[in-house]
Amino acid sequence: MRVLVLGGDGFCGWPTALHLSARGHEVAIADNLSRRRIDQELGAGSLTPIAPIDTRLAAWKEVSGREIEFHEITIGKAYDGLLALLASFRPDAVVHFAEQRAAPYSMKSAGHKRYTVDNNLNATNDVLAAIVDSGQDIHLAHLGTMGVYGYGTSGMAIPEGYLTVQVETPSGWESREILYPANPGSIYHLTKTQDALLFQFYARNDGLRITDLHQGIVWGTQTAETRLDPRLINRFDYDGDYGTVLNRFLMQAAIGYPLTVHGPGGQTRAFINIQDTVRCVELALLHPPARGERVKVMNQMTECWRVRDLAQMVARLTGARVAHLPNPRQEADENELAVENRRLLSLGLEPITLEDGLLLEVAEIARAYSDRADLSKIPCVSVWNAERAAATAAADAVAAE
Amino acid sequence: MRVLVLGGDGFCGWPTALHLSARGHEVAIADNLSRRRIDQELGAGSLTPIAPIDTRLAAWKEVSGREIEFHEITIGKAYDGLLALLASFRPDAVVHFAEQRAAPYSMKSAGHKRYTVDNNLNATNDVLAAIVDSGQDIHLAHLGTMGVYGYGTSGMAIPEGYLTVQVETPSGWESREILYPANPGSIYHLTKTQDALLFQFYARNDGLRITDLHQGIVWGTQTAETRLDPRLINRFDYDGDYGTVLNRFLMQAAIGYPLTVHGPGGQTRAFINIQDTVRCVELALLHPPARGERVKVMNQMTECWRVRDLAQMVARLTGARVAHLPNPRQEADENELAVENRRLLSLGLEPITLEDGLLLEVAEIARAYSDRADLSKIPCVSVWNAERAAATAAADAVAAE
Repeated sequence: MRVLVLGGDGFCGWPTALHLSARGHEVAIADNLSRRRIDQELGAGSLTPIAPIDTRLAAWKEVSGREIEFHEITIGKAYDGLLALLASFRPDAVVHFAEQRAAPYSMKSAGHKRYTVDNNLNATNDVLAAIVDSGQDIHLAHLGTMGVYGYGTSGMAIPEGYLTVQVETPSGWESREILYPANPGSIYHLTKTQDALLFQFYARNDGLRITDLHQGIVWGTQTAETRLDPRLINRFDYDGDYGTVLNRFLMQAAIGYPLTVHGPGGQTRAFINIQDTVRCVELALLHPPARGERVKVMNQMTECWRVRDLAQMVARLTGARVAHLPNPRQEADENELAVENRRLLSLGLEPITLEDGLLLEVAEIARAYSDRADLSKIPCVSVWNAERAAATAAADAVAAE
Repeated sequence: MRVLVLGGDGFCGWPTALHLSARGHEVAIADNLSRRRIDQELGAGSLTPIAPIDTRLAAWKEVSGREIEFHEITIGKAYDGLLALLASFRPDAVVHFAEQRAAPYSMKSAGHKRYTVDNNLNATNDVLAAIVDSGQDIHLAHLGTMGVYGYGTSGMAIPEGYLTVQVETPSGWESREILYPANPGSIYHLTKTQDALLFQFYARNDGLRITDLHQGIVWGTQTAETRLDPRLINRFDYDGDYGTVLNRFLMQAAIGYPLTVHGPGGQTRAFINIQDTVRCVELALLHPPARGERVKVMNQMTECWRVRDLAQMVARLTGARVAHLPNPRQEADENELAVENRRLLSLGLEPITLEDGLLLEVAEIARAYSDRADLSKIPCVSVWNAERAAATAAADAVAAE
């Protein structure tokens, strides 16, 4: 298969590109290196030392004997370049990771809200318009998020994209399947719910074949391919904007800091290991929807954890203690979460669990590179709204007394 | 009340600004005059001779003694200017018309799809982010469209924004009220469904007070205020992109041309007169939602007509005949449509019906300015997808034989 990976220099995109290349697919990457520029902006960076993109690609060729093309393009702004790339590379599939992907970053300021909306929606629309324009029958696989569902809205396991509801009609109540009602918790998540409407439209109007992978929180750093050479190492973000809750815990544990839980920690979230992510993307590419079929949605996650239980597990594994802080996010303090993920399991996914993989992650990454950590970057300083800002400021004042 | 009208030089925005000014509100307009530039791009223009914006505003001052501020700003691109305007003008309400509003224009090419998504979504997000950023308690009233609902999905009267459904929970089926599932028929309509998600998010996260007016197809040209002076006259679009189905019929009737119905003409649509539009906007501003309340959605339409019945009515009033052409739109040929509009009626709206107002429109506009018509601009040349393009081309070939 010929696969174009948009955003192929990022945390999920890079190991996906390598995995697909290792599995014998022809791979090209298009990326504008924006994630590296955001590191500069935030004065933060990956705990692991990531190599420049040309070094990465040269190392991959040395190690694997396989070539990955690289094209520096801003998806969403350079339409003609994208269209020309579809014409020259002639992909069977496009994997779309070319979006700003951190919820706290999207909520930092009006400028960050504007950047996220502008970047993510124009990127997705450009990819869709270009596939139509190209006249080629290209399957689009997009990385979405479990966050489009909101958390715990119905009390039932979250289905894969569509919800069966009863609606009243002149002849009584009838069953309908609708896109799961969106309840996004940040501007970032919001753009993914808006993406879903773009996909629905282009699938119906133009018969595009589209898979939307609603991914949980990704944990872990290395995959079979990124472990092959130090120059191939993947990112590990631990800062308050891009670091996930789990990476923050791992980093805090590695440097002997208390694990910071926001609020009572009753938030339940879905998780998946990065190695499973790259396998899922290939499974999705090998099983595309047919032309004219509706958007295929798969929940790309393997287990659910309550944040405080996750903290307890990391504490148990590492000896760290747990501390509670005010929550800067506008969200419920407690929620139940259960998620359907039968589609990917039925395609053959065998999940790596947190219980099995966390100790390796602590040793291989968090402890191994802990001397590179900048402790001042760990706290989340983005606040969701004026009310949360006031609560956070009040707690800081108490702490300073 | 102090009201900032975004897009206040356009077809709905201009008469709204005048109506609000005439009713004693302090009005400012922000507009980048993009609608006039699109006239240039399409080589088409308003049938009525519309005056430059400064002439319009000077005439309004002469006629009414009232001043309307004008600010040339591209909403969605010039955030700092918008924020400064909120700080200096200090509006109680913002009315948001600053979006590309033609479905056929949004489907002309990849470039037009891209422009519509980029313009409309960045505009809406900028307005919302700026209201939050300003720290002021500003009510936002947005002009949406009936087209967000799709047409005739449930067989019941379309409710005002929210749909009651039954969903399965661990304790049995329960009732939930959800945003009406979106089924947009064009990129333009799609952006309005994406706007609805932006509104939902900012209302929940920041407590913004937002009203979304889901408007039907607007007909008619003049209002009480635009009739006061020829320099105040409103737009009348009859071209294939911006002209509504009704305006195309009126124009065709005025120049003795057959009324062109696309497909069998079974499409049923909702309509409202421009005079009722401007009244509805004021009613919405006088009855804002409370802080913390969900987005208030009102269906801003007064009657439903099947396209072929509308053609028959125009034919009966004017003596024109009806001709059927292939449909360039990807849409159902026939649909039923019933719409709830109790909210605006309960606020005191007394609708002007097509039966009562059409003859005046033919005489006052279509016949009066028919010598300005460019007949070559009437056909809709935008096609929705490759399949519709092929069907249209085949019909043209038959016609040319």
